[in-house]
Amino acid sequence: MDVFPLPLARIGIIGGGQLGRMMAKAAKRLGCTCVVLDPTPGSPASQVAGHQIIGDYHDPAKLRELAELCDVTTFDIEDIDTETLLQLEREGHRFHPSPKVLALIQDKLTQKQALADAGISTAPFVAMPEPSPEAFAEFGYPLVQKARRGGYDGRGVSIMKSAEDYRAHLPVPSLLERFVPAAKELAVVVARGLDGECRCYPVVEMCFRPGENVLEMLLAPADVSQATADAAIELAVRTVEMLDGVGIFGVEMFLTESGELLVNEVAPRTHNSGHHTIEANVTDQFEQHLRAVVGLPLGITDQLSPAAMINLLGAPGHRGRPTIKGLNEALAIPGVCLHLYGKAATSPYRKMGHVTVLDPDIESAKRKAKRVRDLIEISGEDHP
Amino acid sequence: MDVFPLPLARIGIIGGGQLGRMMAKAAKRLGCTCVVLDPTPGSPASQVAGHQIIGDYHDPAKLRELAELCDVTTFDIEDIDTETLLQLEREGHRFHPSPKVLALIQDKLTQKQALADAGISTAPFVAMPEPSPEAFAEFGYPLVQKARRGGYDGRGVSIMKSAEDYRAHLPVPSLLERFVPAAKELAVVVARGLDGECRCYPVVEMCFRPGENVLEMLLAPADVSQATADAAIELAVRTVEMLDGVGIFGVEMFLTESGELLVNEVAPRTHNSGHHTIEANVTDQFEQHLRAVVGLPLGITDQLSPAAMINLLGAPGHRGRPTIKGLNEALAIPGVCLHLYGKAATSPYRKMGHVTVLDPDIESAKRKAKRVRDLIEISGEDHP
Repeated sequence: MDVFPLPLARIGIIGGGQLGRMMAKAAKRLGCTCVVLDPTPGSPASQVAGHQIIGDYHDPAKLRELAELCDVTTFDIEDIDTETLLQLEREGHRFHPSPKVLALIQDKLTQKQALADAGISTAPFVAMPEPSPEAFAEFGYPLVQKARRGGYDGRGVSIMKSAEDYRAHLPVPSLLERFVPAAKELAVVVARGLDGECRCYPVVEMCFRPGENVLEMLLAPADVSQATADAAIELAVRTVEMLDGVGIFGVEMFLTESGELLVNEVAPRTHNSGHHTIEANVTDQFEQHLRAVVGLPLGITDQLSPAAMINLLGAPGHRGRPTIKGLNEALAIPGVCLHLYGKAATSPYRKMGHVTVLDPDIESAKRKAKRVRDLIEISGEDHP
Repeated sequence: MDVFPLPLARIGIIGGGQLGRMMAKAAKRLGCTCVVLDPTPGSPASQVAGHQIIGDYHDPAKLRELAELCDVTTFDIEDIDTETLLQLEREGHRFHPSPKVLALIQDKLTQKQALADAGISTAPFVAMPEPSPEAFAEFGYPLVQKARRGGYDGRGVSIMKSAEDYRAHLPVPSLLERFVPAAKELAVVVARGLDGECRCYPVVEMCFRPGENVLEMLLAPADVSQATADAAIELAVRTVEMLDGVGIFGVEMFLTESGELLVNEVAPRTHNSGHHTIEANVTDQFEQHLRAVVGLPLGITDQLSPAAMINLLGAPGHRGRPTIKGLNEALAIPGVCLHLYGKAATSPYRKMGHVTVLDPDIESAKRKAKRVRDLIEISGEDHP
């Protein structure tokens, strides 16, 4: 029977960052309530959710408290104690994506092995339990070293051109991947429902600063051929089906210079490459994620306007209460949509917000987004 | 200097309903915090704002408490004690729109007189301080009686075809208006900035059930000629400039069968005829209102997709904790965007949410919206 008392569902969100914040907004309009688990009082997500449990993502008692308050629990972060979640799931609590999927993905080595086992193309890789110059040299440069656990936003990844770069290696259990000279880096945000139905957002292009692993700009849709776009969608769906995940997944891939698509990484959650969907698409990724995990029908993902997205990062050398410069000038640019995350303190390169620029002409959107990046500076009260 | 510490501004919202709720969401992404004043604990707006003062809109002490906590205060409702606001404004507290504008508009007679004095076309009207059958007959039927104060959502308005309908009159100080056999009812949502700049959303069409004053469906854009659309925009801007208002104003008008435009009513706040802008336009009316009242540049109002909007009303005869029927089926329709307001209890015809349908073909959007209206029913636990 299609009858529900309101609130429709109580959603648990592990992690109180910007993803949880945008998810909480979507949850409210779907008639759901939210509880956030985060160690920092007044977290970005809790400012919208209105209910936060102050506690660590690894604290079994707090995870249990959250699960017991909620009908279904999901994540804003990946680095969670899955042992506790698996136990709670066995007891009948609902988590999406499932802790099993999360455990597989949060270890970048098991993630890569699962992809390879399923015949999904990736860059060649080897396990590197104990980094050594010899082992790196044997695998061969240029390479990318990735820590098995705990990396995000470019942390836990080191790109090495030659043996001289070994000094920048991460002294932790890792994997080594062949460095892929990619023509473009693409991403597909995939939603998979409880019933297994998949819906994808149009393929986007992620532009990184040369030599760095921090997203500089996102362009939607990606400037690729229809055949490439179709192949990317097909690859992303195959990846998420292999994982048997429910909810939103961000599938990052390389388009090599020879036109081959290789899956780079999978994020088992709403994704930075889908933030533009709030304004640019009929159903945004946050609502779509909730529709999936609650068991509602998925929405359509049609894009209404080309979009360029940039992250607003804390300025280097600055910490403390944030101050924003250039806001008036940026907001006067037609099509600029601002999202600040309500973080109480900035720190160097911390994600403090993002801007999506809508423009019928994507080249114009790109120019405007660059202009916004030049205009806005987020500094902090505590700086030298 | 274009430099602001975050939060950018503390926004006070008098009234904790759905307008405040959608405004609070926009406030958060602009880097603002919110405080809501509403008598009901856990009001829809407070669920997102996170901070509510429990108190009446007419309570001078509570209004003062709110104003003192905030940089600028605005409204989700019209029926507020403007005497207190005027006093607080004299003391230096900022309100937008100004209490003077609010006072003028909340009395439908002074509102109409101001329009007439400014040479803005309206239906012919007279003041009716003490309703009597003779006075009504003298004005002549068909007529519309409007209570001077306190009407909203069709309340405080009585449409009378002939003298026999007098029994349905409102026994309060009122005005009488000539009943206008309108070809269409249109609305323009206008934003006016602190600097006087105006930006309008494309003209929309409001469809009412025959003989009732409850919005049945909103279509955006309205199916009118470009000349009519231009004239409607011009009329709306002239109206808001005459009022010297800051923020969003909803200007409702009649398009008569002879093609004349008459201003019916002005709402000094975000408006039901602008809800579709959340999904359908680049900048939504709630963000636009905040940009105006905070003093930021106004955003562009371009529409990205045709849209149809319906309100979700509480079923007749039902009260108490709401239950929603038909949600799954409705959400499966492509382009259906749901907004539930988080109200703890339903009552007959109470606005419990709305649905915006996006579709490249507005006729298809309309059909889908009708289908959603037929599917969704919001009933309550307490019913006969």
